[in-house]
Amino acid sequence: MTHRIQLGMVGGGKDAFIGAVHRIAARIDDRYELVAGALSSTPQKSQESGQALHIPRIYDDFKSMAIREARLKNGIEAVSIVTPNHVHFAAAREFLKRGIHVICDKPLTSTLADAKKLLKVAQQSDALFILTHNYTAYPMVREARDLVATGALGNIRVVQVEYPQDWLTEAQDFKQAEWRTDPARSGAGGSTGDIGTHAYNLACFVSGLEGDSLAADLQAFVPGREVDDNGHILLRFKGGARGMLWCSQVAPGNENALRIRVYGDKGGLEWEQESPNALWFTPFGEPKRLITRNGAGAGEAANRVSRIPPGHPEGYLEGFANLYTEAADAIEAHRNGQKPDAAVTYPTVEDGLKGVKFVAACVESSRRNAAWVSLSV
Amino acid sequence: MTHRIQLGMVGGGKDAFIGAVHRIAARIDDRYELVAGALSSTPQKSQESGQALHIPRIYDDFKSMAIREARLKNGIEAVSIVTPNHVHFAAAREFLKRGIHVICDKPLTSTLADAKKLLKVAQQSDALFILTHNYTAYPMVREARDLVATGALGNIRVVQVEYPQDWLTEAQDFKQAEWRTDPARSGAGGSTGDIGTHAYNLACFVSGLEGDSLAADLQAFVPGREVDDNGHILLRFKGGARGMLWCSQVAPGNENALRIRVYGDKGGLEWEQESPNALWFTPFGEPKRLITRNGAGAGEAANRVSRIPPGHPEGYLEGFANLYTEAADAIEAHRNGQKPDAAVTYPTVEDGLKGVKFVAACVESSRRNAAWVSLSV
Amino acid sequence: MTHRIQLGMVGGGKDAFIGAVHRIAARIDDRYELVAGALSSTPQKSQESGQALHIPRIYDDFKSMAIREARLKNGIEAVSIVTPNHVHFAAAREFLKRGIHVICDKPLTSTLADAKKLLKVAQQSDALFILTHNYTAYPMVREARDLVATGALGNIRVVQVEYPQDWLTEAQDFKQAEWRTDPARSGAGGSTGDIGTHAYNLACFVSGLEGDSLAADLQAFVPGREVDDNGHILLRFKGGARGMLWCSQVAPGNENALRIRVYGDKGGLEWEQESPNALWFTPFGEPKRLITRNGAGAGEAANRVSRIPPGHPEGYLEGFANLYTEAADAIEAHRNGQKPDAAVTYPTVEDGLKGVKFVAACVESSRRNAAWVSLSV
Amino acid sequence: MTHRIQLGMVGGGKDAFIGAVHRIAARIDDRYELVAGALSSTPQKSQESGQALHIPRIYDDFKSMAIREARLKNGIEAVSIVTPNHVHFAAAREFLKRGIHVICDKPLTSTLADAKKLLKVAQQSDALFILTHNYTAYPMVREARDLVATGALGNIRVVQVEYPQDWLTEAQDFKQAEWRTDPARSGAGGSTGDIGTHAYNLACFVSGLEGDSLAADLQAFVPGREVDDNGHILLRFKGGARGMLWCSQVAPGNENALRIRVYGDKGGLEWEQESPNALWFTPFGEPKRLITRNGAGAGEAANRVSRIPPGHPEGYLEGFANLYTEAADAIEAHRNGQKPDAAVTYPTVEDGLKGVKFVAACVESSRRNAAWVSLSV
Repeated sequence: MTHRIQLGMVGGGKDAFIGAVHRIAARIDDRYELVAGALSSTPQKSQESGQALHIPRIYDDFKSMAIREARLKNGIEAVSIVTPNHVHFAAAREFLKRGIHVICDKPLTSTLADAKKLLKVAQQSDALFILTHNYTAYPMVREARDLVATGALGNIRVVQVEYPQDWLTEAQDFKQAEWRTDPARSGAGGSTGDIGTHAYNLACFVSGLEGDSLAADLQAFVPGREVDDNGHILLRFKGGARGMLWCSQVAPGNENALRIRVYGDKGGLEWEQESPNALWFTPFGEPKRLITRNGAGAGEAANRVSRIPPGHPEGYLEGFANLYTEAADAIEAHRNGQKPDAAVTYPTVEDGLKGVKFVAACVESSRRNAAWVSLSV
Repeated sequence: MTHRIQLGMVGGGKDAFIGAVHRIAARIDDRYELVAGALSSTPQKSQESGQALHIPRIYDDFKSMAIREARLKNGIEAVSIVTPNHVHFAAAREFLKRGIHVICDKPLTSTLADAKKLLKVAQQSDALFILTHNYTAYPMVREARDLVATGALGNIRVVQVEYPQDWLTEAQDFKQAEWRTDPARSGAGGSTGDIGTHAYNLACFVSGLEGDSLAADLQAFVPGREVDDNGHILLRFKGGARGMLWCSQVAPGNENALRIRVYGDKGGLEWEQESPNALWFTPFGEPKRLITRNGAGAGEAANRVSRIPPGHPEGYLEGFANLYTEAADAIEAHRNGQKPDAAVTYPTVEDGLKGVKFVAACVESSRRNAAWVSLSV
Repeated sequence: MTHRIQLGMVGGGKDAFIGAVHRIAARIDDRYELVAGALSSTPQKSQESGQALHIPRIYDDFKSMAIREARLKNGIEAVSIVTPNHVHFAAAREFLKRGIHVICDKPLTSTLADAKKLLKVAQQSDALFILTHNYTAYPMVREARDLVATGALGNIRVVQVEYPQDWLTEAQDFKQAEWRTDPARSGAGGSTGDIGTHAYNLACFVSGLEGDSLAADLQAFVPGREVDDNGHILLRFKGGARGMLWCSQVAPGNENALRIRVYGDKGGLEWEQESPNALWFTPFGEPKRLITRNGAGAGEAANRVSRIPPGHPEGYLEGFANLYTEAADAIEAHRNGQKPDAAVTYPTVEDGLKGVKFVAACVESSRRNAAWVSLSV
Repeated sequence: MTHRIQLGMVGGGKDAFIGAVHRIAARIDDRYELVAGALSSTPQKSQESGQALHIPRIYDDFKSMAIREARLKNGIEAVSIVTPNHVHFAAAREFLKRGIHVICDKPLTSTLADAKKLLKVAQQSDALFILTHNYTAYPMVREARDLVATGALGNIRVVQVEYPQDWLTEAQDFKQAEWRTDPARSGAGGSTGDIGTHAYNLACFVSGLEGDSLAADLQAFVPGREVDDNGHILLRFKGGARGMLWCSQVAPGNENALRIRVYGDKGGLEWEQESPNALWFTPFGEPKRLITRNGAGAGEAANRVSRIPPGHPEGYLEGFANLYTEAADAIEAHRNGQKPDAAVTYPTVEDGLKGVKFVAACVESSRRNAAWVSLSV
C-alpha cells in the first residue's frame, strides 16, 4: 500500500485552469496520489480527460464516484472539487456524507442558501473540509498574520485590500470568462465572488478581525455583463477597525494584483501577491523593513511553509501546495484520531460561509445604493 | 526696474513649513522677487522673520500690507498666502479687491461659507487667483491628464486615489500638527482637508471628470482628536465613472504616498508622488510602459514643465515651482491684457471651492452614516 | 506499466538542499517517478534517506545502482546526479556508459580534466546528458534569449551579469557551506564555481554569444577561506561584445540576486532572478516595457514553459521543473529514435565544459594578476 | 549692500544644459546673486545670453571679466565655471590668482597636465575651489558615507559602482553630444570623463577609500567615435577593498542610472541616483532597511542638507544646490577668516585631480590591454 493519500477530483477536465493548479499543488510535496476522477460535465469528456491525465478510475459523474469510492478497499480518502461554483455544494455533500474529506475551491457555493446547507452537512460529517483560499498559505502572508497576532502592529485601525485584474476589460467569450460572468453558475457576484472573496478572506485572515458590516457600490461596466466586474466596498470590522476593499476585472495593467495593507497604532505592513516573497513591515517611527521568505527576520509561521532558501522565489503553486500539505497533515492526524499540529492553518467551511455572505452582502448593499449591510452569518 | 514680479507673502514665518516651500518655488525659475511680508501672527515675530529672510518691507498684518502695497509705485503685483486655513479668506479678499493677484495655499478656506464668498470676491476682481494644488503641476501628472484627454485610456470607468501619511499616528503637540488638528483653524475636516482635498483635486484633474456625489466613512482614531485622521470615501463622477479615495494620517510606513490610478475601457495609468518622474501607462492588451519625465514617450504637456534631462529627478519643489511659473506667465499676460498660453494650467478659485465642498460633503456624509451627499457647489 | 519516466538519484540525502529541489522539479509536471537511489555517502545513511523518501530501490553506491538498474526490465531510464561537484564525473560515467540518461547538477565537474573526460564519455554514449543550469529555464529568460535571437536588440555590445549572495559573509561551518568552501570537493573556484558559472552560463545563453577571454580579480575575504568568495571579472566575447561579471557570497543584503542586462545597438533588456516573472525591454528611443510571463507581449518561447496565468508568480521550482520537462520530452523522443521539438532547450555537457573552463580561467587569470586568459575549450 | 554672495559665470549660454542647472542651484537657497558673466565663446552670443538672463555685467571673455571684477568695489566674490572641459583650467586660473572663489564643473580639466597645474594654482591662491561632483551632495549619499564612516558596515570589502546612460547609443550631432565626443574639448576619456569620473568620485566619497590602481577595458562602440562610450573597470583600493566600475553611454533603457553598492564585513548599502531619497541598508543577518531622506533612521549628515519633509522628493537640483549652499557657508566663513562648520563637505581641487588621474589611468590601462595602472597622483 502506498504512503500517499489517495485523492479524487471532481471537475478539472482538460481545458480547466484551476484543476491543473490543484493537481500540481497536490504533487509538489508528494503527499497525494490522484487515482479517481469525474472531471467533466459529460461522461465522454470525463473519460478523455482522465486518460490524458493517466488517472486510473474515471467516473461519469461525482455521485457515482462518491458511492463507488466509498466502498472500495483502497478508495479515495479525499476529493478535490474544482468545478464551477454552482456545483460545489452538491458535489461536496456526496463526499462529506460518506466520510471522504473535501478540498474545495472557492467561493464555497454560488448561493448563500447552499452555503448554509453545506455548513450543516460539514458539521454533521466526520470528514474534514478544506477551502482553497490559497493566498492565505503564502509564507509571507503567514508572517503578516503572525506579526498582527503577536502585537507588532498594536491595535489594528485600518485594513486596505484590493484585487484588481484586467482580463474582463472587454466582453469575452472564452471558457474561463464564460461561466464566471454567468450568475447561474458563478453566483450573484461577479468580481466580488471570483476575487473579492479572496480579498475579504485575506483581510480577515491577516488582521485577525471579523467583519461587522459593509457598504458596496458595484458596477458592471462592460455592456451586457450580468454580474459586477468592479466593486468599491467600505468595511467595518468588529472592534472598530475600518477597511476598504476594491475588486476589479476591468483595470488595464493589472494581472492578479492582490494587495493588502494593515495599519495599527504601533506599525504597518504591506504585502503584494505578485511579489509574494516579500513583506514590508514598519514599526511606527522606524525605517521600513523588508522581510523575505526564509530570510533574516522571517519567523516560524512563514518558515514552516517554505521549501527553499531566501532569494529563490516560491510562487503561486507553492502557496497552493501549502494548503494541500496542511490538509495532508490534518488528514493523517484524523486517521489516527488526532488533531494536526496547532500551526496547521487552512480555511474551513465557516470561512467559506463568511465569503459567500460577503458576496451576498455586497450585492444587497449595492442594490440599496450602498447602504450598510451586516456581515453576520 | 527689475524684470521680476514683485511678490509679497502673508504667513510663512520662521518655523512654517509651507512658507519656505513657496519661497523656494518662487525662486527656482527666477520670475519673482519677494519684497514684502506680513509673516506672522504678531508684529514682532513678523519683523524677526522678515529680517531673517532679508525681505525689505515688513508689515504688522496683511491688511496694512495690502493697503500700502496697492499704493506704492513699485508695490507688489502678487501675494502668496500661506497661513493656516482659517485666515485664507480674509487675507485673499484684501488683496483681490485691490487688484493684487493671489497665490493661495490649499484648502481654499476653512468653511464652505467662506469659500463661496471668496469665489464671489475673486469673480468681482480683475486679479488672478491661483490655488497651489501643487501635485497637479508635476510633469508626469500633466502627462497623465493629457493621456486621458487625448483618449488613450478610452472612456474612464474607475479612479483610485489615495493619500496616506503616518505622522499623526500618535497624538502630537508640535506646531505643524497643532493647527491641522484644530477644527477652528483647519476646518471641519482633518485628513480630508489637509490631504484628502489634494487627492480629490488630483483625481478630477487627471481624469477630467467632475464629482457627482460621495459616501464617506471618517474616523478619528487617536483618542481626543477632534477632526478625522482617516477617511474612506466612495466617489461617483458625472457620466458614470466611480472611484475610491483613501486619506490617512495614521498609516505607519507612509510618508506622503499620494497615488492615483485611472482605468478606462482602453487602458490604465498609475502615478505615485514619491516617484514623481515615472508614469505607468498600459494600453489594454499591451505591455505596461514606463514613461519618464523628459524621456522617450513623454509629450509636450509634460516636457514644457520639465527643466532637466530624463533620469535626473525633479521633485516636489520643482513641481511647486511649475505653478509659480505658470502664475508668472499668466500675470505677465494679464499685464498686457492678454491670456497666457493655452497650455498654462493652474488650479483656480473654482477648484478651491470644489475642494472645500468635498471636505464638507465628507463630514456630512460621515455624520449621516456614509449616506450619499452631492458634490455640486 | 507506468507512463512516467523511471528515475534514479545519486546524492540528495535527507539534509541536502539541491536533491530536494530536483525531486520537486521532477514531480511538478508529473513526467517522472523516482524509483531508485544511492542517496548518501554511506550505505546506512542512504537506506535511511531512501525510506524517508519512500524510494523503492535503494543502493549502497552509485556504481552498484548503475549496474543493477541497467539489467532490470523496468530499470531506471534516467538518473539525477546531485552530489558535491567532485563526484559528478565518476557517477555520470557509470550511467552514461550503460545508456542511462543523466540529469546532472552544475558545475559539470570539479576539475577541467574531469570535464574534458566527461565530454568524451557523453559523446561516446547514446544517452542524453542534461546539465541543470536551471536559471536558463525561467520563462522570461527564454523570452530574453528570443528577443536577442530575433534581433530586437540589434548587435549586442555589452553584457552585465552578476550573482551576489551574502550567506558566506562570515565563516560558516554548516553542511551547505562546508563542501562549497573545500577546494577538494567544490573545485578550485569558490563563488566562481558555485554561482559564477550560473552567471556566465546565463550571459552566454541569453546573449547567444560565446566567450573569448576573461580577466579576473578574485578574492577570499573571509580569513582562512581557501577558495574565492568574491570575483570581479572582465569578459570579452567573440565578435567584439564585452561584459562584466560579478559573483559574491559576501555581499550583505543579497540573497540570490542573479541579474542580467544585455545591450545592443537597437535596445536593451534586464532580468532579475528574484523577480523572475518580469522582463524589462527597451527599444532604443521608446519607453521601457514590462513584459510579464504569459502576459501581453510575451511570446511562444516563454509561454511554452509557463503553466499559469500572468500575475500568478511562478518561481525557482517551476523554472527548475522546466528543465526536467524538457529532458522528459527529449527522453521520450529518444525512445522513439526521434529528436525532441526544436524548441526544447537544455544545457548540455558542452555547456558544462565551458562552465568548468570559465572557473579554471578565472583562477588562472587571478593568479596572474588579472591577465587575459582564453575561454576556448 | 545685498546679503547675497555676488556671483559670476563663465560659460552657460542659452543652449547649455549645465549652466542653467548651476543657476537654479545657486538660487534655491537664496545665497547668491548672479551679476556678471562671460557666457559664450563669442562676445555677441555672450551679450545675447546675458540679456536673456538679466545679468547686469556681461563680458566678452573670462579674462576681461576676471580683471574687471577683481577691481570693482562690489565685484564678484565667486565665479561658476561651466564651460566645456578644456576651458576649465585657463578660466579657473584667472579667477583664483585674483582671489575670486571658483565653483567649477567636473571633470577638473581635460588633461592630467592641466589638472596638476591647476592644483598648484589653487594651492597658491587664498581663494576656495569647489568642484561640483554634485551627486556627493544628495542627502542619502551623505547618509551612506556616514554609515560607512561610523562603522555600520564594518571593514569595507567590495564597492560596486556604475553609471549607465543611453543617449549616445547612436551617432549624434547635437551640441551636448558634440563637445563631449571630441577629445580636444572633453579630454581623452569619453564616457569615463563625462560620467565615469562621477562614479569614481562617488565610490571614494561614500566608501572613504582611496584608489590604488585600476584595470580598464574601454570601448568606442559607435562607428567613428573618437572617445570611449563604454568602460569596464576593475578597481583596487588602498587597504585591500576591491571594486568594479561600469560607465556607459550606449546602454538603451538607462537615463542617468548612477548606482552605488558598498559591502563590508558587517553590512551593505545601496543607493540609486534616480531614486535619490532612498537608501537601503542591511546589517548582516537582519532585514533590509529603507532609510528615507528626513525620515525615520536618517541622521544628521543627511538631514542638514534636506529641506522638506520625508515623502516629498528632493531631486537633482536640490542636491546640486547643496553644494552651492555649502560653498556659500565656506565663502562666508572665509570672509571672516574662519573655517566653515566641520560638516560642510564639498569636493575640492584634489578630488578633481584624482578624477582626471582616473580618466588618464583608464585610457592608459585600456591601451595596454587592461594592465593595472596606478591611481596615485
